[in-house]
Amino acid sequence: MNQAQQKKMIGIDLGGTSIKFGLISPEGKILRKVKRKTPSTKNFEEILKLIVGEVEKILRDNRLTKEEIHGVGIGFPGVANGNGDVVFANNLYWENKPLQKSLEKELSLRVKVGNDASLAGFGEFHFGAMKNTRNALLLTLGTGLGAGVIINGKVFHGSHYLGTEIGHMIVGENFYNCNCGNNGCLETFASATALVKYATYLLDAGETSSLKKTLEKQQKPVTPQQIIDAARRHDEVAEKALKRFIHYLAIGLSNLINIFDPEVIALGGGLSESGDVFLEELRRLTKTHTYVKEQNPTKIVIAELKNDAGILGSAMFLLED
Amino acid sequence: MNQAQQKKMIGIDLGGTSIKFGLISPEGKILRKVKRKTPSTKNFEEILKLIVGEVEKILRDNRLTKEEIHGVGIGFPGVANGNGDVVFANNLYWENKPLQKSLEKELSLRVKVGNDASLAGFGEFHFGAMKNTRNALLLTLGTGLGAGVIINGKVFHGSHYLGTEIGHMIVGENFYNCNCGNNGCLETFASATALVKYATYLLDAGETSSLKKTLEKQQKPVTPQQIIDAARRHDEVAEKALKRFIHYLAIGLSNLINIFDPEVIALGGGLSESGDVFLEELRRLTKTHTYVKEQNPTKIVIAELKNDAGILGSAMFLLED
Repeated sequence: MNQAQQKKMIGIDLGGTSIKFGLISPEGKILRKVKRKTPSTKNFEEILKLIVGEVEKILRDNRLTKEEIHGVGIGFPGVANGNGDVVFANNLYWENKPLQKSLEKELSLRVKVGNDASLAGFGEFHFGAMKNTRNALLLTLGTGLGAGVIINGKVFHGSHYLGTEIGHMIVGENFYNCNCGNNGCLETFASATALVKYATYLLDAGETSSLKKTLEKQQKPVTPQQIIDAARRHDEVAEKALKRFIHYLAIGLSNLINIFDPEVIALGGGLSESGDVFLEELRRLTKTHTYVKEQNPTKIVIAELKNDAGILGSAMFLLED
Repeated sequence: MNQAQQKKMIGIDLGGTSIKFGLISPEGKILRKVKRKTPSTKNFEEILKLIVGEVEKILRDNRLTKEEIHGVGIGFPGVANGNGDVVFANNLYWENKPLQKSLEKELSLRVKVGNDASLAGFGEFHFGAMKNTRNALLLTLGTGLGAGVIINGKVFHGSHYLGTEIGHMIVGENFYNCNCGNNGCLETFASATALVKYATYLLDAGETSSLKKTLEKQQKPVTPQQIIDAARRHDEVAEKALKRFIHYLAIGLSNLINIFDPEVIALGGGLSESGDVFLEELRRLTKTHTYVKEQNPTKIVIAELKNDAGILGSAMFLLED
């Protein structure tokens, strides 16, 4: 360990609904955790001010000088360039925002900016389900399907920081288009949104289901959790929706295994918490699709760090050269 | 350059129909080229003997001692493990053959073994269409769809040498199954075989085409070249087959751009020589599918080194640590 690696770090996970802050020890221990609501305006300057204030407060509260801190790592939902500028971040309505430079100026600390799913993957790589690997992937199954790709022990971005958009890998034809304008993106089959859309599609088509009553009662779309719960009770529509989700996620995973041949693919995000209803079948189906079947050694597991993956990975990103 | 890098190298491209040998200068100049037919038996010992004899002959003919040679790099169509053993090579009917060890023993030279498409990609990376990049892909459009992936200036294999099987990325549903047992693999849509299969499918369905006469005359399936030529003459069946090929290849390319964000994707293999009939439309369609559209900077080009990519890449593979 060099001197920089012996200093504490601050990791930030900037999302559309909350901003999580962590004071992280060089060994990856979370010494302090703070969660703040993301301002509803999503205004860049307002969020900047909130982050600066919170970082200063964490330092004060922990009696740390800036010299005792290695820097601030920050993950956000979008695309950054090599200078740490936000190229775009749809959920925040940001375009071309100098996130790294602005924070460095305001904080007088080293700042490093990256994609949130990539950095959550880096967290799992250092301290979670992807530990002791060289090549591994984290897929986050949430509203969309995000991905963090580790190649040769480093966060992989591609040549222009536009890579690892695995949710937009086209794997078939779907009855609705993706937000990105294409048809057949993996995240339109294998995400919480996809699960809800397909269950709703079946309900609209008049299929019998206990979810019909739920829908009428709450007067808003069924939730992913309600579908999972109904599938546990062997509700037919819910089981069909879950089966389709697993079918396409298995295609996605086998494509990724055929391409990356990683040691581990970890599944995170909200849906991963219901892994018990789909993991076994997902593993079985994925195996049937991979090119090299018998020998295929990629492990498919549930991610371990949950909401801490982002702050841990963002902090560790500071140590990557 | 260290001492090893100043020595000449031998690069071998071992295929199912021919074995190509090259004596390569440290600067990547092909000083001598030899092509031999692959023995029809595909017998491992017989091919080993042929390779050893030819390497010894090249050294003799060029008055080179073994000390003056850095080693022998060899690419073959299949999967090797980290020790240079052939795990399997379908076209050669090989399984678990100690290719590297056997050659090292017989030749008393350093030997390095890799996948043929990967090493052809490494050739294009050093001396061809992928020069001056850090991340780039070669796709070979032949009987199947092979790929060589360069990440961070190195040949990417995955963790267990099972990666970069891009021909088996599932992208849709097809009317026939892939050799690998799956349905919807990219190479069943975007390869010479795919082109012939779909044109034949349309002809069998009774569609009018000048290819019908060709088919009757030659009493064997139409060739990819005949389909391309017919498409140039605006034959409807040939145009439909070509259009479908381009449609799915564009999906494959945009998936790869979304995943790898490379500087260049180079297209090689037999079909790439007819790039003039599909490249422009392929680029246009690929752009519509990529997640980041306007800014997307990946160049799609025709590979440059043709049949020399393999021997050059195999030789340069010796210099990779």
